[in-house]
Amino acid sequence: MASNGEWKVNVPDETLVIEPTVSKRMYIQLQGKILKSLKRIGNFWVKAKNIATSDPRKVIHGVKVGMALSLVSLFYYMRPLYDGVGGNAMWAVMTVVVAFEYSVGATIAKSFNRASATILAGSIGVGVHWIANQCGEELEPVILQASVTILAAVATFSRFIPSVKARFDYGVMIFILTFSFVSVSGYRVEKLLELARNRVSTIAIGTSICIFTSMLFYPVWAGNELHNLVYKNLERLADSLDGCVTEYFKDSKEDRGRKHEGYKFVLNSKAGEEVMANMARWEPPHGRFKFRHPWKQYLKVGATMRSCAYCIETLSGFINSEVQAPELLKKHMKEVCMTLSSSSSNVLKELATTTKTMTKSTKTHLFVQEMNFAVQSFKNAFKDLSKQALLLTEHEAGEEKSTEGTKTIPIMAIFPIATMATLLIEITERVESIVTEVENMAAQAEFETENKPSKRDQDLK
Amino acid sequence: MASNGEWKVNVPDETLVIEPTVSKRMYIQLQGKILKSLKRIGNFWVKAKNIATSDPRKVIHGVKVGMALSLVSLFYYMRPLYDGVGGNAMWAVMTVVVAFEYSVGATIAKSFNRASATILAGSIGVGVHWIANQCGEELEPVILQASVTILAAVATFSRFIPSVKARFDYGVMIFILTFSFVSVSGYRVEKLLELARNRVSTIAIGTSICIFTSMLFYPVWAGNELHNLVYKNLERLADSLDGCVTEYFKDSKEDRGRKHEGYKFVLNSKAGEEVMANMARWEPPHGRFKFRHPWKQYLKVGATMRSCAYCIETLSGFINSEVQAPELLKKHMKEVCMTLSSSSSNVLKELATTTKTMTKSTKTHLFVQEMNFAVQSFKNAFKDLSKQALLLTEHEAGEEKSTEGTKTIPIMAIFPIATMATLLIEITERVESIVTEVENMAAQAEFETENKPSKRDQDLK
Repeated sequence: MASNGEWKVNVPDETLVIEPTVSKRMYIQLQGKILKSLKRIGNFWVKAKNIATSDPRKVIHGVKVGMALSLVSLFYYMRPLYDGVGGNAMWAVMTVVVAFEYSVGATIAKSFNRASATILAGSIGVGVHWIANQCGEELEPVILQASVTILAAVATFSRFIPSVKARFDYGVMIFILTFSFVSVSGYRVEKLLELARNRVSTIAIGTSICIFTSMLFYPVWAGNELHNLVYKNLERLADSLDGCVTEYFKDSKEDRGRKHEGYKFVLNSKAGEEVMANMARWEPPHGRFKFRHPWKQYLKVGATMRSCAYCIETLSGFINSEVQAPELLKKHMKEVCMTLSSSSSNVLKELATTTKTMTKSTKTHLFVQEMNFAVQSFKNAFKDLSKQALLLTEHEAGEEKSTEGTKTIPIMAIFPIATMATLLIEITERVESIVTEVENMAAQAEFETENKPSKRDQDLK
Repeated sequence: MASNGEWKVNVPDETLVIEPTVSKRMYIQLQGKILKSLKRIGNFWVKAKNIATSDPRKVIHGVKVGMALSLVSLFYYMRPLYDGVGGNAMWAVMTVVVAFEYSVGATIAKSFNRASATILAGSIGVGVHWIANQCGEELEPVILQASVTILAAVATFSRFIPSVKARFDYGVMIFILTFSFVSVSGYRVEKLLELARNRVSTIAIGTSICIFTSMLFYPVWAGNELHNLVYKNLERLADSLDGCVTEYFKDSKEDRGRKHEGYKFVLNSKAGEEVMANMARWEPPHGRFKFRHPWKQYLKVGATMRSCAYCIETLSGFINSEVQAPELLKKHMKEVCMTLSSSSSNVLKELATTTKTMTKSTKTHLFVQEMNFAVQSFKNAFKDLSKQALLLTEHEAGEEKSTEGTKTIPIMAIFPIATMATLLIEITERVESIVTEVENMAAQAEFETENKPSKRDQDLK
């Protein structure tokens, strides 16, 4: 019976054949996912490595933050007033983590915002506390709540005003934070004053560690970055312009590279320029930049550069365009176009040198004259073009036949070259407005006058 | 003697005549300064009022932040665990102040970053603490210091990696902050775990208050903002294009307004679009936007729109250019140019409607065909131009005389109109790439097919 009973145990209809397939499928899926995520980690690692190698200052910034944090924690290890989380150490650590930015200007801006907003909000908070205290126990929480709500609402709205946003965005946030802390906290004004003293001293320690670390070890000055960006963008424009026109007149289409895409960088540098100019205003004089260096003028130069870049963008659109001018016409116009574009890019390069070396160049006006002369001879070349009967007369136009003997070209064929011409002339006009703005910058920043050519040549090397 | 002595008192040679002048000058200076600062305050007030009236949601945002702060402080007034600054209330208040952003997406992103970074850094911190604890008292501070320095450096560097910066910038900062707190704090792991529990619960309270307030009261969805920006930019492009060409062919130069400057807004909306697309990815499905709405595709549409805007910028440069085509030529070309530009702007307007109503339009392809037809008839018009002998023949070119009887025009005169033509044709090409990207968007976002014209017409009203 027992053995019979054993035999009666139902073997469930297990689909053993399918199971390995399911597990295998899961295994393959898992393998695929692991491989995919490994690949993603690999890609991430490559990206990080590229950033580190292309700009080692970013690695140095990381090290600096680590150093500043070590410093601040060491400072509190060594002091008896250390009392764990919630105590003073915390505020100093927080200040370092939050206020330490990549550039010196941004660090100073954040430190200043943090310190002044804390002091301001603290004093207003204590004042409101005192007033609320005088109004009796019933009214006190109502007054405190109302003041927090109203001040927070007004301060938050003020962050939308561009002038506040640009300079004091972080400060307003800290203001709301501190004011709320003071209001939400206990009731005695004496305790508050003691806390306030501690807060101020810890913030002072935190901000000074931030500012000194960022200024003394491999400093990154926002002003310097902006200055470099502007002259590099001038160079980029010059190279793009040259590149575009050279490509257009190249014989074979195959070896058209992408060397002329620097203008795209110029198109997208507006936001970066504005941030840097805002930060640069907080920085003390450094290197070649004196107090009250005209950082705002860099934005004007940037705007004119972008206006020129728009034109170059349109121009580059025609290079790979399907409608191309006939070879005959191209050959005829090649030289004048090249002269015109290289004269414009010479002006741009000279402006880049002026900005880079911070020396007023005597050559700029010479180059501008040369450019204007090139525009004139360019126009003359087109007059010659019609003299040489390259254009179709009315009878031939109807038939649209281009017999090489009579050197006729349909009217539409002249369009690409005419557009090229007009764009190049427009670019020269926009280059002239860059010249004006760079000269304004040179005047405002009191660039040196070029009187020691030997010294300047050394700088250029 | 006494009276004599009295008389001997020296009256100092007081320059009583000058004193009033100095004080008066100071008074005038002070008055000037006060007036100046009053004027600045007035300007500031006007600016703030303009922002408030043009976008009342910004005022509402301020009120919402005030409300959230009141809520969080009320929450702690009513609970017995309230214990002043440094206690739990502080962390909830801080979370609200720091994580409450303008759009729902940004608020969720910050809340998520804050919560997950705190938990991650907390657990790693406790782990490192435990390991350091096992290594003996001498090694403990060394290990803690080293781990803070290294982790802070690596994490800070990771903020430069674009994919981290776009989504987890704030999280990395909170990670460093929390990890430093844990390391710098006292030594017992048990105390840390208790603190961690409190921190997590306060952050949970703070973030949920943030998220609910931002979602329930007049929510501002980043996704919706991006969507509106894109279709408004399409409309702006259409208006600018129409405006530019109409202005060009206007008879009098005086009444040339500035109605066609919408393209400038498109030129500068890259940064805004990217931020919004990043934030929109954090948002739950809302309104017409489902889960996994293709926000990234909006960036592609934005890029093609900007490429079109560059061309319009160049075009608008020619409107006020000194070199203008002769009136005769202008009159001849007016109609075809207007037809071409209005056919392009019709396509843009139809795309704007498609995006706005989220309904695939059957008319788009019709409009594109119309545009291509307009390009063709535009080209034919230029062929006719040469048939009508509006062009200079080789003999007349040399003399550059334009006698009205023979209807001749110098070759350079055709340049502006040729450029206009080429630019308009280039714009149609760029409009076609916008069409492609908008269609991709419509496919990815599964826009409705236009089958109920009556409903759609209602939407349009």
